[in-house]
Parts: sequence; C-alpha cells; structure tokens
Amino acid sequence: MSKAAKTQETQFFHTGSAEEPFEFASGHTLPGITVAYETYGKLNATRSNAILLFHALSGSQHAAGITTSVAGTDERWTEEIHNGWWDLFIGPDKALDTKRYFIICANYLGGCYGSSGPASIDPATDKPYGSTFPPVRTCDVVKSQLALLDHLGIKQLHAVIGASVGGLLAINFATLYPERVKLVVPIASGCRTTVLTRLTLFEQVLAIENDPHFKGGDYYEGEAPEYGLALARMISHKTFVHLDAIERRARQDLKQTKGSLSWYKVQHNVESYMLHQGKKFVKRFDASTYLRIADMWLRFDPLRDAGVKSYKELFARSKDAGQHYLVFSIDSDFCFYPEEQAELVAHLEKADVSNMHITVHSDKGHDSFLLEPQLYTPHLSFLLEGRWAKASVDRPVPEVE
Amino acid sequence: MSKAAKTQETQFFHTGSAEEPFEFASGHTLPGITVAYETYGKLNATRSNAILLFHALSGSQHAAGITTSVAGTDERWTEEIHNGWWDLFIGPDKALDTKRYFIICANYLGGCYGSSGPASIDPATDKPYGSTFPPVRTCDVVKSQLALLDHLGIKQLHAVIGASVGGLLAINFATLYPERVKLVVPIASGCRTTVLTRLTLFEQVLAIENDPHFKGGDYYEGEAPEYGLALARMISHKTFVHLDAIERRARQDLKQTKGSLSWYKVQHNVESYMLHQGKKFVKRFDASTYLRIADMWLRFDPLRDAGVKSYKELFARSKDAGQHYLVFSIDSDFCFYPEEQAELVAHLEKADVSNMHITVHSDKGHDSFLLEPQLYTPHLSFLLEGRWAKASVDRPVPEVE
Repeated sequence: MSKAAKTQETQFFHTGSAEEPFEFASGHTLPGITVAYETYGKLNATRSNAILLFHALSGSQHAAGITTSVAGTDERWTEEIHNGWWDLFIGPDKALDTKRYFIICANYLGGCYGSSGPASIDPATDKPYGSTFPPVRTCDVVKSQLALLDHLGIKQLHAVIGASVGGLLAINFATLYPERVKLVVPIASGCRTTVLTRLTLFEQVLAIENDPHFKGGDYYEGEAPEYGLALARMISHKTFVHLDAIERRARQDLKQTKGSLSWYKVQHNVESYMLHQGKKFVKRFDASTYLRIADMWLRFDPLRDAGVKSYKELFARSKDAGQHYLVFSIDSDFCFYPEEQAELVAHLEKADVSNMHITVHSDKGHDSFLLEPQLYTPHLSFLLEGRWAKASVDRPVPEVE
Repeated sequence: MSKAAKTQETQFFHTGSAEEPFEFASGHTLPGITVAYETYGKLNATRSNAILLFHALSGSQHAAGITTSVAGTDERWTEEIHNGWWDLFIGPDKALDTKRYFIICANYLGGCYGSSGPASIDPATDKPYGSTFPPVRTCDVVKSQLALLDHLGIKQLHAVIGASVGGLLAINFATLYPERVKLVVPIASGCRTTVLTRLTLFEQVLAIENDPHFKGGDYYEGEAPEYGLALARMISHKTFVHLDAIERRARQDLKQTKGSLSWYKVQHNVESYMLHQGKKFVKRFDASTYLRIADMWLRFDPLRDAGVKSYKELFARSKDAGQHYLVFSIDSDFCFYPEEQAELVAHLEKADVSNMHITVHSDKGHDSFLLEPQLYTPHLSFLLEGRWAKASVDRPVPEVE
C-alpha cells in the first residue's frame, strides 16, 4: 500500500425490474440485481480507455486505494480488506496506470461485498435469500458486468484482466462478447476445470455442507457455518501459497488455537498458522457466497456458454475480433498449474489468435500475482500502451556472411 | 486375489498387566493391550525366516488369503476387506514366498481391527475408551509388535517391510531395534512428515473434529462422525490415486449420491465417485482410529524416538548393525513424493548404509504398491533370497584397449 493511497468509494449499479427481470443461465430470474463496483482513473472522451478487472475467489470490487466501509456488508468489511487487493498494480505510473486508464472492478454476482448474493435481502420476504438465491455461472457474472459497462457507456474495453478465477471470467467475457474487448489478460488461470481442481473444490463444498449450521444455506438467522468455511479456506489456502513459504511464515508467526479442537492437539506452527488463516477468513466472508463461487468454478465451461463444441471454435471468435492475449504463468503455482496456461496457449495457437505467454519465476506460488508487481508490470505496461505490438514487428534478420 | 487363496484367521496377543502395564511414549499406561495379527508360511527351526510387514493407514493385519470375520470388529469387517490387502505379494512363489518365509502382519495399536484402540472396551468402565485411549506414536506401535515377536520367539527378523505409513514404521523399527532386523524395505514412504503432508493430514483431522457427532471421540453410544470421516477419506484418497485414473474410473462407475448434500448438486462423475469412496469407507473404519493414525503420522519423528539429533546419527545404527535398505519410489506418487525417498536415500548414503533405490514407473500413483506386484516382485525376491548381494559384488571392469 503506497502512502499516497487514495480513499475510494464503492458504487452500486442496479439492473432489472419486475417487468424485465435479470435472467440467469440456469433459467432462474430475479426482478433486480445490484452490482457493487469501484473505478480508478478517468474515462476519456471517446470512452476507449476502460479496463475491466475481475477479482479472484475471495476478492472484491475494492482493488485499489482505501475503502473503509461498504453499505450492506455488515461486519464483513473488516480492516483486513480496507486496502485494495491490487493496489500494487493500480495507480499513477503503475501497471494499470490511472493517469491513462479507467479501471473498473466489480464484485461477482452472488458475492458478499455489495453485489446481490445469498446474504442479500430478498424484497419478496424481507429476509436473506439464502438457499433461494439462484446458482451462478461465470456467464451470469459476465452478463451482470456487461450491463454495468452499458450503463457506463463503454462499447469496447481496452482490456479485460483477471487472475485465478478472475482469469476464467476474463476468457468467458472475451469469447462471449468478442467485439467488446481488444486485449485479454488471464493471469495464473486456465481454460477448464482440471480433475485436481474439481476434487479440491469438492472437498471445500463438503466442508461447508457438513457443517451442522449450514442448513442448506438458510443459516442467516442463526449461527453461521464457520468451522466448515474455515476448513474450506484452509484447503484452498494450501494451494495458493508456496509451502516452503508457509513453513517460513509459520515459524515467525505462531498463533494460539485454544478452543478450536476437542481431541487433537495442534503440533506444529504450520497447523496453527493455517487454522488462524481459516478463522480470520470467516470474519470477512459469507459461506454461501464461498459455495456459490466454488460451484461457479466447478461449472465453468466456456464452450457451453458460447454454444460451441471445441476450443478452436471458441477462440475463432477471438481471432475474428482481432483480440490479443497476454497469458501469465507462475512457475511455483499449485492452484492453476503452469500446464494449464500452456494448454490455453496451445488452444490459442491452434485458432491462430495473437498471443504472448510469459512465465514468471517466483517462490510465492499462486499468490505471486498479488505480491510481486515487478514480475508483471513491464509486460502489462507494454501491452496496454500498445508497445508490445511495436516491439513484435518482424524485422529482417541480418544475414550471416 | 488368486483362486487358491487360503482361509486365514486373525490371532490375538495380549501383553501387559495391572502390575506391569503397557507404557506409551507419552507416559500414559494401559494395564493390558491386545495386538491382532495374522501369519503366513511357517517359522523355521532356527526362527530366522520371519518377515514383519507393516500395513498402511487404513489397512489391517489381514494381508493375504481370505478372512471372513475377526472377533470384536463389529460390523466393520465388511466383505470389501475379506481379501488380504497384499495377497498379490504374499503366497507360494510370490514376492513374499510363503514356501520360504514366515510373514507376520499386525494391526496397529490404536487400530479398529482387533488391536486395542479407542473403540475397544475399557475394562475399568465396560465402555469404549473413546477419548481416554492414549495418543499413539509410531514407536508405541513398534513396541507392541516387538512384544509380539518376543512372544513368538523371534530374535532377529529376516526383513521388515512397510509401504506408505507402514514404511515410516519400518524405519522406526529398524532404527530403534537395529539388532532385530537385517533387511529394511520402505515402499513409497519417507523419513519425515513434509509440510504438504502435514497440512493434508491436518485438514483430515479437522474434517473429523468439525463433525458434530465426534464429541471429542466419545461418540460410541450415539451416531458416528460419518460425514467427517468420509470427507477425511476423500481428502487422502485424492493423494493415493493418479488423477487421470480417477477420471477414467469415475466415467465407468457413476454412483448415485442422493441425500448427501443439501444445497450443492454433484456435477461430475469424479465427485460422485469420491463421495462413494468416502461413504463406503465409513462402513469399515472407525473415525477415532483414523484420527489416531493421522495424529501418529503427524507426530512421526524417528530422531526423537531414537534420542538422536541427526539422520546421520540415526542411520549410524543401521550401519553398525549391517542393515541393508531397499527403497522403492513410484514416479506418479502424490502421497509420498519421489523426492521424499530420495531424501531418505541421501541420509542413508551419508551414514554409509548399504542401500538400493528403485523407482517404478506407473500410472496408478501411490496405490501402485497395492496393485502392481510385477513392478516390485523381482527386487523383493532377490533381496529376500540374498541374491541382491551376490549380484552386487564388485567385478573388475574390463579394460578398454
């Protein structure tokens, strides 16, 4: 967080009505939905400098600067998240330069940070939706944010950027609405849900479902399924960080764990460290939103959403729209393995889509994309400024005598 | 399972008394304990052909042939485990040739298949021990089985063999009682608990602890923590099998999952497959035994048990006793990664212990050691027959002219 961090404010966009309800891909409808979003920088006169940023699983619309409160988030807007999650990347002269670009970041539909989700009040009952909030797919999130772009009068984005689950959304957006964006940047992401990811997510689903307080999602008037959510978080957290780094951090940072366990005695700092991470997380997140996003990730299928049968067909849309992809891999990533980005790039190549694939070397694992702007900023800057294209112009190779 | 599979019978060995109680490494005592075991083949006149085999986490004393019932295991002795878990490796002319060797396999202390454990009746209360059964360390299991060897009059084993957690026990046995064994065979195992293993085990501990039926381990008069145990099993099962293989098997083998989940809808065959594995497992295993073994694995520390400060010191005992190690790695193992056996072998090398390290190539992951006898049998046979030593005699290298 830079010292000059600006105070930000979350805004709210409402769409849909009783007459024209918002329709989910599942066929469910809601008479109206809210999208919580923040913006950084200024939209230019031609509205051509907008960048849409998708957050990751537990992120929010608050990507940069400081936001100390957000209406309707109850006690979940904890101090831990007052600083924007990508502040190292967004600001004057940073990768997403607010002197040049207008950056938009919105909370996922189904979220718990101001966008409509299971914890939101259903106007029909004056109680939280809970289990009745429709299942959400990535294309529903994309659709809700497209409505926001329409509202802001943005016909074509300069770029769409997303890391982790946000990268899946970036690809979904770019292939569903190819005419709406030129540059596509999936960071530490993929183009399908692998078996390992599926099983890891399913364990998290069960951790929450097994909590006796979960009650199918209708727990808002009683205790929340905090033990289940904490375990889910721990299962995923293990894939976000480099394990050696966990061990190092855990050594410095022993936390007490009294009262968490009945029989088992915590034996090692990495255990108390993870338990602490899990417990800290439940204060700022809603279990049903977690489950919706896990479910959305498990259901991710950009082919189905686009009504095509192959990745070649899917990315033919990108090719036809003249899109360019910048794909980042992190060599130590255990959440989205480098093989997954290689697979994405192979599909892009087959469809003849302009692309560049960069692997950053880090000992921070998946979380590198949050922590190490120096590894990403040069390529992001060149891409956004159009200098990547100039730099890649084929020059005649000097002949060897 | 071969057609000629023999009917076996589990036997019970009792040790300790009110006057001479069995003492655990933690300082806890029990006035007496039972060790359930099976034997295959015949002990020779000099009692020099005995092999001790340690089972893995969810295994039992029943390694070969068919055992249709075991006293005191209630409904846990399901048909699924009537066939010995290593029958492909034990029998006439197999890797552990019952025409030559006398093989002993015993259920872990703390187990649920006939050895004393949390589900056993405490004679002081006439109720299951539950939470009052002492924590178990690997050296306690080793000690209980050493008492069995004394009872059988076996002064020195021909070999000790163990796969997975059983390999940890084999190393613990060999270094605590170096004069009691000549050949040591850890298969797909390691010599310490890595951070990844620690976190994966800790998740399993929490899955059981979070189950409202667990009650600190005192659930035997009510419902068992089956959801928690099923989730724990799923978390570990993911590390046992090759994920591509899970996907292939899942496709062939769709199971119904009605009633397991309240909100989430199972979307993919691998999810229902894993759920089915978890549910099947709870019928045959006790959650408190599972927790004891996870705890034992988390506490594994052969240096502490041997009262030494380094692996060099630890394995100096093996060197002095003239032990030889045969270490197996499985290239696709996600439970004990090949790096872990490489680390073990490096320690053996530093301590100048005779050893051989073999990596088998398999697409079956950790479970290969249960399924593919052809990959292990040649080296096991040569080792046990003493032919490895003959084959390794240094011969003069023919000079190149």
